[in-house]
Amino acid sequence: MTDKKLITPRKLQGFWELMPNEEMVFEDILDKIKNVFKTNCFLPLDTPVLEYSDVLLAKSGGDIDKEIYRFTKGDNDICLRYDLTVPLARFVSMNYNILDFPFKRFQIGKVYRGERPQKGRFREFYQCDADITGESLPLTYDAECIKLYEPCFKALGLEVEIEVSNRKILAGYFESLGFGNKINNLMVVVDKVDKLPKVEFIALLKENSLTDAQIDNLFTIITAKGSFEEIKKKVENITDNSTFKAGLEELETVDKRLQAMCMEKESLCYNLSIVRGHNYYTGTIFEAFIKGKRELGAIGGGGRYDNLCGHFIDKNIQGVGMSIGITRLFDILKNENMINLNSSSTSVGIITFDEETLQYGLSLMTNLRENGIRADIFNEEKSFKAKMKEANRKNIPYVIICGEDEVKSNSYTLKNMATSEQVSLTLSKIIDMLIKNNE
Amino acid sequence: MTDKKLITPRKLQGFWELMPNEEMVFEDILDKIKNVFKTNCFLPLDTPVLEYSDVLLAKSGGDIDKEIYRFTKGDNDICLRYDLTVPLARFVSMNYNILDFPFKRFQIGKVYRGERPQKGRFREFYQCDADITGESLPLTYDAECIKLYEPCFKALGLEVEIEVSNRKILAGYFESLGFGNKINNLMVVVDKVDKLPKVEFIALLKENSLTDAQIDNLFTIITAKGSFEEIKKKVENITDNSTFKAGLEELETVDKRLQAMCMEKESLCYNLSIVRGHNYYTGTIFEAFIKGKRELGAIGGGGRYDNLCGHFIDKNIQGVGMSIGITRLFDILKNENMINLNSSSTSVGIITFDEETLQYGLSLMTNLRENGIRADIFNEEKSFKAKMKEANRKNIPYVIICGEDEVKSNSYTLKNMATSEQVSLTLSKIIDMLIKNNE
Repeated sequence: MTDKKLITPRKLQGFWELMPNEEMVFEDILDKIKNVFKTNCFLPLDTPVLEYSDVLLAKSGGDIDKEIYRFTKGDNDICLRYDLTVPLARFVSMNYNILDFPFKRFQIGKVYRGERPQKGRFREFYQCDADITGESLPLTYDAECIKLYEPCFKALGLEVEIEVSNRKILAGYFESLGFGNKINNLMVVVDKVDKLPKVEFIALLKENSLTDAQIDNLFTIITAKGSFEEIKKKVENITDNSTFKAGLEELETVDKRLQAMCMEKESLCYNLSIVRGHNYYTGTIFEAFIKGKRELGAIGGGGRYDNLCGHFIDKNIQGVGMSIGITRLFDILKNENMINLNSSSTSVGIITFDEETLQYGLSLMTNLRENGIRADIFNEEKSFKAKMKEANRKNIPYVIICGEDEVKSNSYTLKNMATSEQVSLTLSKIIDMLIKNNE
Repeated sequence: MTDKKLITPRKLQGFWELMPNEEMVFEDILDKIKNVFKTNCFLPLDTPVLEYSDVLLAKSGGDIDKEIYRFTKGDNDICLRYDLTVPLARFVSMNYNILDFPFKRFQIGKVYRGERPQKGRFREFYQCDADITGESLPLTYDAECIKLYEPCFKALGLEVEIEVSNRKILAGYFESLGFGNKINNLMVVVDKVDKLPKVEFIALLKENSLTDAQIDNLFTIITAKGSFEEIKKKVENITDNSTFKAGLEELETVDKRLQAMCMEKESLCYNLSIVRGHNYYTGTIFEAFIKGKRELGAIGGGGRYDNLCGHFIDKNIQGVGMSIGITRLFDILKNENMINLNSSSTSVGIITFDEETLQYGLSLMTNLRENGIRADIFNEEKSFKAKMKEANRKNIPYVIICGEDEVKSNSYTLKNMATSEQVSLTLSKIIDMLIKNNE
């Protein structure tokens, strides 16, 4: 071995990899969210990580973005997926004739973006999306996607705060000013309201030909926050533009549906300054925050979009979807000490001393595992003291000692590592106790 | 839209993608296996799909295999992983100083091989591995990996049959004949015993310089099948070679541990003709089959290996692991009609008629979901008859009708779609019934 050249073991920069104690918690988070998606009747989808480049880049007319991982293999021009939405569009388009619409699907999977790695930004990271697609989707589905954050956050022991708007309101206002041809540019400007000093923001609006009066009205709109009634009262008389009116009406219906769905009033806030993704969404838009932690930024968002499959098939498929930034959320929970990274993968460690007690302990281990208890034996040749020390270091809550006496009396000595209490018990008593403890 | 060129939506050939009803079952299988791994105190690991090429190809000295997906991005020479073992070796080597050994990890993830797609062979498919690594691993861990198939298969409603051997037995026999320098070649030949006609197989052995007497003894070894006592009696006097003896002794210890772990005798068969992967394994080797379906081939296998990290660090890390061919297993269960692909993602569908009943139904939906019941509302504007038809087509077992009468009496009409029975119930009764039904 010494004359062999060693390769330094390393991981690609910016690629996410958790240590096992962290991964245990992360998988637990994913499982809880998946369960909520399933209870909400979303179906799982698992598309390939690789796609044909022309399919994945259909939207941009095949233009390559340097963030995208692209290569050829044989005759195939291949990309790694950079989101889960284009694969959804491809899947729905390919299976249009056999899918049952409305099609509610969730997907939690890795996506790839070759951007410069930095804090909180990864080149490989998870996306977690739930979307509803169909040929004609009532606004109830928009409400369903918003409401979905509530049980997802609750399952993680968090409370959510969701801000909701409808893109037609701002678009309609700009239309009413005669700026119908540069709505997307103006949305980009509005998106900067929280990022720029007010003077600079106003200067930018003036550069885009807005008058003082128009800017005043714009501020009335984008500072409107609160219940639907409150924001409606504030903005409804600003213009008669039909797009604007349609946006407000859609928002009113969504609000009514959310109330019927028992959405907590304190979790919901209408905020007409939300822009989100500039030109992708066409109606309802929303962003989700951890309650009381707004400064950490949005943990997720989504909205209504038209024409999901327009690049692939000549059918008009609408969609509305929500997503949770699961990699970011995990990072936040970890940094804010909101998760326990010290829990053990083992509920009970079994200590034996020789060949005879090992046989006794192995049979106990099987028995406990068959009862769903995470039992493990200390297998290595170590002293009793060393094994107890290992149990302590690994935060294993219970230890069962299988010595000569225990074998003779067909019993087991259970030690609570936190309290150091020690009791001699039969197998069935131990199982009862540990199962109760697990619940 | 009509003047735009459409891109034909297609998926890369040989890449696995299930329809949602299949994916539901597949994820359920993965969850069940994960749970067993966790109960057996294995920790989860999730390594990146991409690795540096020199790291991934360290074993082959950087030689590229045309099956491997490899490309460059910026300055990086990158490969898609082709198994989960090299990433494990990389991870253990990188984190050698902070990992707690023995390190028990499981990983279920996609791997990539650019081979020609054919029935049952995929270019992107799942591997499902559980390995134990450490500096000195007692044979109890070998037994643990073998035993692990039993609860995994049981969780899927299957019975397992495992064939076990130890590579040292055949290796020792070849050593005793003076063929110590061509053991790997001879293992490749032995691996063909079931694939070639006996005459051809014997001819091949003769080509490799084995005499008639040596071939006779080889047949005694590779036809030895049964309990450990049976095979030991059959082969123990063939040679005094120390490797051969060590192999038999190791197998005896593994058998003793398996008995202590209450491994079903009928699930276990020693079979000294097993070779598995030619030169990777160094001790215990095993293959798992579905009981009564041996003709479908092995569903998994594994064994003991030395020097996992030898290409990366100057430490001797041993390992023993088991794997389940989960993609293949799913294909088999599907083809043999052993899974139900017709179960609905929805346990109960809610039918409403107008704005008022919709509000009533949405509140019911939230209530049911909060109780863990997969409830969904028929949202689209369709007749009652059309909604009932949809419930039938989607195999939804129950429907709740929320009409004007129900709103007035604050009750709900629950219809069992299989029996057509219809009862009027209060909310709490409905929840009780559906939860009981779910269990």
